[in-house]
Amino acid sequence: MNVANPDTSRSSVGETLLTYGALVQRAMQESLPQHEPRAWLYDLVSAYPARAGKAIRPSLCLASCRAFGGSIAEALPSATAIELMHNAFLIHDDIEDESELRRGRATLHSAHGPALALNAGDALFAIAQRCVHANLDVLGPRLARRVAHEFVVMVQHATEGQATELGWIRDNILDLTPDDYLDMVMRKTCWYTTVHPIRVGALIGSWGSVSLEPLVRFGFHLGAAFQIQDDLLNLCGDEECYGKEILGDLLEGKRTLMLIHVLQTAGSADRADVVAYLGRARSSRSLPEAQQIRDLMVAAGSIEFARAFARGIAYEAEASFERAFGARAAATPDGEFLRGLIHYMLDRTS
Amino acid sequence: MNVANPDTSRSSVGETLLTYGALVQRAMQESLPQHEPRAWLYDLVSAYPARAGKAIRPSLCLASCRAFGGSIAEALPSATAIELMHNAFLIHDDIEDESELRRGRATLHSAHGPALALNAGDALFAIAQRCVHANLDVLGPRLARRVAHEFVVMVQHATEGQATELGWIRDNILDLTPDDYLDMVMRKTCWYTTVHPIRVGALIGSWGSVSLEPLVRFGFHLGAAFQIQDDLLNLCGDEECYGKEILGDLLEGKRTLMLIHVLQTAGSADRADVVAYLGRARSSRSLPEAQQIRDLMVAAGSIEFARAFARGIAYEAEASFERAFGARAAATPDGEFLRGLIHYMLDRTS
Repeated sequence: MNVANPDTSRSSVGETLLTYGALVQRAMQESLPQHEPRAWLYDLVSAYPARAGKAIRPSLCLASCRAFGGSIAEALPSATAIELMHNAFLIHDDIEDESELRRGRATLHSAHGPALALNAGDALFAIAQRCVHANLDVLGPRLARRVAHEFVVMVQHATEGQATELGWIRDNILDLTPDDYLDMVMRKTCWYTTVHPIRVGALIGSWGSVSLEPLVRFGFHLGAAFQIQDDLLNLCGDEECYGKEILGDLLEGKRTLMLIHVLQTAGSADRADVVAYLGRARSSRSLPEAQQIRDLMVAAGSIEFARAFARGIAYEAEASFERAFGARAAATPDGEFLRGLIHYMLDRTS
Repeated sequence: MNVANPDTSRSSVGETLLTYGALVQRAMQESLPQHEPRAWLYDLVSAYPARAGKAIRPSLCLASCRAFGGSIAEALPSATAIELMHNAFLIHDDIEDESELRRGRATLHSAHGPALALNAGDALFAIAQRCVHANLDVLGPRLARRVAHEFVVMVQHATEGQATELGWIRDNILDLTPDDYLDMVMRKTCWYTTVHPIRVGALIGSWGSVSLEPLVRFGFHLGAAFQIQDDLLNLCGDEECYGKEILGDLLEGKRTLMLIHVLQTAGSADRADVVAYLGRARSSRSLPEAQQIRDLMVAAGSIEFARAFARGIAYEAEASFERAFGARAAATPDGEFLRGLIHYMLDRTS
């Protein structure tokens, strides 16, 4: 296999993720500083990148670039920046959500306190930006500028979605619909998980000539399927496999599709239980209580509803795939990989 | 007065800060988004920028640019980015330090909770980056790239200094010297408060031709004088004028020059009191106890020591000023303003 431009035609989606993930992992390690202060900064900065993730985001970027005729070398700085920024977001999100586990181990703020962890996230943000600036050598000023603009727009979208999700919890908003959820997820998850990596990969691969709108549509469907599956795993998954604390979302009061459904459809007594649970502070919610809410969701059909909803979104992703990539790019090995990711999103257990 | 290029020859330092501050304030307001989500994001993002600061950082950038022959228009995006990034740092630092007051009002995390405040800081970081990218139109690709690189290096230096200061507190490090303090302050404060703004202004004004090393030296002395005075105001200032809680640094256990001095010079009984105070968690330190430590500092001559140290650093700043700017730039109205800032740093009460 040619490592610089791996042939994905016969690989499964999982193998391609491993191949692309290894390339980005190496580039990420090269970009991380190895000097002082280590114990209070750069050891923390390196901690999450060293816990291998699924590499979905950088793989989307590399594959989109190649599907449109570009090379790994052209997209690697952008893919690396995306993965570094993802890790920066994880550090800050874990603080904001008061999460305990990340990729099967203690979250950074649990291990080092929130102050040093928050600061390490800021450093990682700057290091990600350095990778974005490295594009000037590879892509020239015009295209590098577009990618840099895409990057800050992506960060801003992610903070908008995160603010909405945190605001719903803090102000205990109860009258939400699946449309509200999708709107929040578009900004919180899709923009930085799927839309941005695909847009940037396609921009680079096509040298700025591709139409972005259909790619945004495909990316949105793919990202929403990813997020709904993530929410389902948090509710019903296997903790060892999933790597985060099961029922963490319910303890935080996160407005998932399942929570929105149970609030809309449960009988009045059950709904009153859910409302009372959400009305209490996080610190006074217990795991047995969260399990009771999950049982109410099972009884109300909320989990089946979310699974069906995700399948519907995945169907939309299938339908929008070829329009987004065009017959030629769709037929490449990387196009096949991108199409294969739709089902991977729904079938994954971690 | 020509607003686009104000004449600073007869203005006092304070008036020039007001003039430049107003220009940057307007540019900052224009860069802040005015759309949803407001209550959970953009109202928070706008909160600190709306509380007028001293505008030292952007004024340094604008004045350095003009002293070397550049215009306000060329340096304004960079000056705006610096001030926005400063506000982003303030939000995150206030969370990390658990501070209660900022510019005379409640800190953002005290008013809105740490999660939404942290996220608002991330958004402000992205908005600052947008201003950096706007340089491409004003400066062309070569110079814009240098400024963008300077910007991320500055952010990284600031996180290194912040990590060191937080690490000293968390691990209760007691055997520090004034040299350790200066090394930490160079990264935590000087790089982003003085060195970066001056370097970037000079780079733009001279179109990349100026020698940066002597400017770094001047910036370091100016920034260190600024930080020592800030530490002194926190210990002995007037809260209404200063805008932060007096004795906050002592309650946090910050390793200031005064604390380092009292640990080095106090008699063994007094030193034991200071060590016992620092050995307790922040939450179990009371204001009367912090006042006792301040009294010990007064008795040990630690405050006089820090004042003298700051005067010595200011003397060095004077000595390095003309070498940094050269006779021609030093003689301009903006050169006069920059020289005048040395004494302003020591005399300020807010």
